[in-house]
Amino acid sequence: MPPLPSWNDTATRQAIETYVEAATGDRVAVFDNDGTLWCEKPMPIQLDFTLRHWEAMAEHDPSLRVRQPFKAAYEHDYGWLGTAMAKHYEGDNGDLKLVMGAVGEAFGGMSVEDYAAEVGDFFAEARHPTLDRPYRDCGYQPMVELLRYLEAHGFSTFVASGGDRDFMRPIASTIYDIPAERVIGSSFALSYREDEEGGAVVYKSGIDFFDDGPEKPVRIWSRIGRRPAFACGNSNGDVPMLRFADGLRLLVLHDDAEREFNYTRGAEQALAEGWTTISVKNDWATVFADAP
Amino acid sequence: MPPLPSWNDTATRQAIETYVEAATGDRVAVFDNDGTLWCEKPMPIQLDFTLRHWEAMAEHDPSLRVRQPFKAAYEHDYGWLGTAMAKHYEGDNGDLKLVMGAVGEAFGGMSVEDYAAEVGDFFAEARHPTLDRPYRDCGYQPMVELLRYLEAHGFSTFVASGGDRDFMRPIASTIYDIPAERVIGSSFALSYREDEEGGAVVYKSGIDFFDDGPEKPVRIWSRIGRRPAFACGNSNGDVPMLRFADGLRLLVLHDDAEREFNYTRGAEQALAEGWTTISVKNDWATVFADAP
Repeated sequence: MPPLPSWNDTATRQAIETYVEAATGDRVAVFDNDGTLWCEKPMPIQLDFTLRHWEAMAEHDPSLRVRQPFKAAYEHDYGWLGTAMAKHYEGDNGDLKLVMGAVGEAFGGMSVEDYAAEVGDFFAEARHPTLDRPYRDCGYQPMVELLRYLEAHGFSTFVASGGDRDFMRPIASTIYDIPAERVIGSSFALSYREDEEGGAVVYKSGIDFFDDGPEKPVRIWSRIGRRPAFACGNSNGDVPMLRFADGLRLLVLHDDAEREFNYTRGAEQALAEGWTTISVKNDWATVFADAP
Repeated sequence: MPPLPSWNDTATRQAIETYVEAATGDRVAVFDNDGTLWCEKPMPIQLDFTLRHWEAMAEHDPSLRVRQPFKAAYEHDYGWLGTAMAKHYEGDNGDLKLVMGAVGEAFGGMSVEDYAAEVGDFFAEARHPTLDRPYRDCGYQPMVELLRYLEAHGFSTFVASGGDRDFMRPIASTIYDIPAERVIGSSFALSYREDEEGGAVVYKSGIDFFDDGPEKPVRIWSRIGRRPAFACGNSNGDVPMLRFADGLRLLVLHDDAEREFNYTRGAEQALAEGWTTISVKNDWATVFADAP
């Protein structure tokens, strides 16, 4: 069997194979996650998880039902969130601060292991709103094959995403066969709480770092300690990561409204760099593996 | 050949073998570095590296020769540093602040790759002041065997040290066969500097975090994302890391003045916990491998 069966025989697949077959020396490969390894539309999977958590909080505590963003989550008023983000892009961060504060209220004080268990429960059940499949089956099959192909050629593979590191970790081993120590992402600040029984690492209520844009090369160095040769992303926030890589740089282009989504918003700067693009429509014979 | 040839047949080796042979499930092993995997007396190897860097700075810039700690480094007046540390333990951090500021002066603005090259040059030449061997041969041979033994039984092994992560990384693969992504430690803050050629990750002049005491479980979670089963340290700063591990906890006891060093200062609290100790004198048949 050829190494990338879900890929069409195109110039992009040729460029990948030519690069990988010839690669020698230090071989690190980094992949963005949202929109690169799994689907990020109509909203990031992590946002759906967070909305469900806020909704459950508002079910237990009626006082939250009149406070944003709990109110929006409880009423399934996703327009409020869209407006909050639109205001943010226009320079008004008032609503975004409410969102970030509510994330801290939701998860501050929780142990990392309790959070991982809640994430696991979410992926056991939650389904994508339009693709008619569980979220756990929203990883791109051609990218899973690319991960294995790189590893077979001596690459160490890493996820390097703006998403929350500890949200991706419990599911990355299932979808991508990448263990927790090779998942890089944003994080809440952490502290160690002693107890009688081994203690626990718990989240503080604030963000420690947001792994996007120029923070991506910083987090990659912190976690890996080597400059990547191979990097793949899909948006403007991936540009510094791709610039930092010294071998093959790839961008996923979402141009397939029929099988996935069609959008370039937030990718304009990245697409202007002239790097090799992966067209979902033309380069992928299959987008998602069959649901099990 | 038995799996741990440099270990004597003692109760400690038996305890390790009994635990490792029976271990199942998630298997992560973490090791402190200074005093656990390599020698830390008469001074941490990283301090010798830093003193040499300060001395070279003072050779180029005479104005530094009258400023501490450059003056002490230039004059080889290591008593000044000892006094600075003694003052710190008595609650007077004035001299320690000079030391930390000078570390920032030495390495702030340097790229991570230039720093790695300087560390590599240091280990190519520098020798331990009393053990009659290069620093690169100051790793404990029984611990290298223990790393391989754990890996052969399905453990993922990590260095988790208070030492500077990026000082350990260039040499950890040589001494311990542990790659950069499995080296956890303290770090300077980092930033990404764009340029025409892939950009560079560079050190800021301040510390990002000091990976000791209760910070150790935090850094272990950040980097690994799993609770360790096996942990090994040698000092009070390792206590939270060992408490956080839920399997076998080990402490190296430095009690062999003839072959290495004899000291328990800074380990009093750790030794009082009652964990299994590794006596250098009694448990290790060999301390260091022969120099190549």
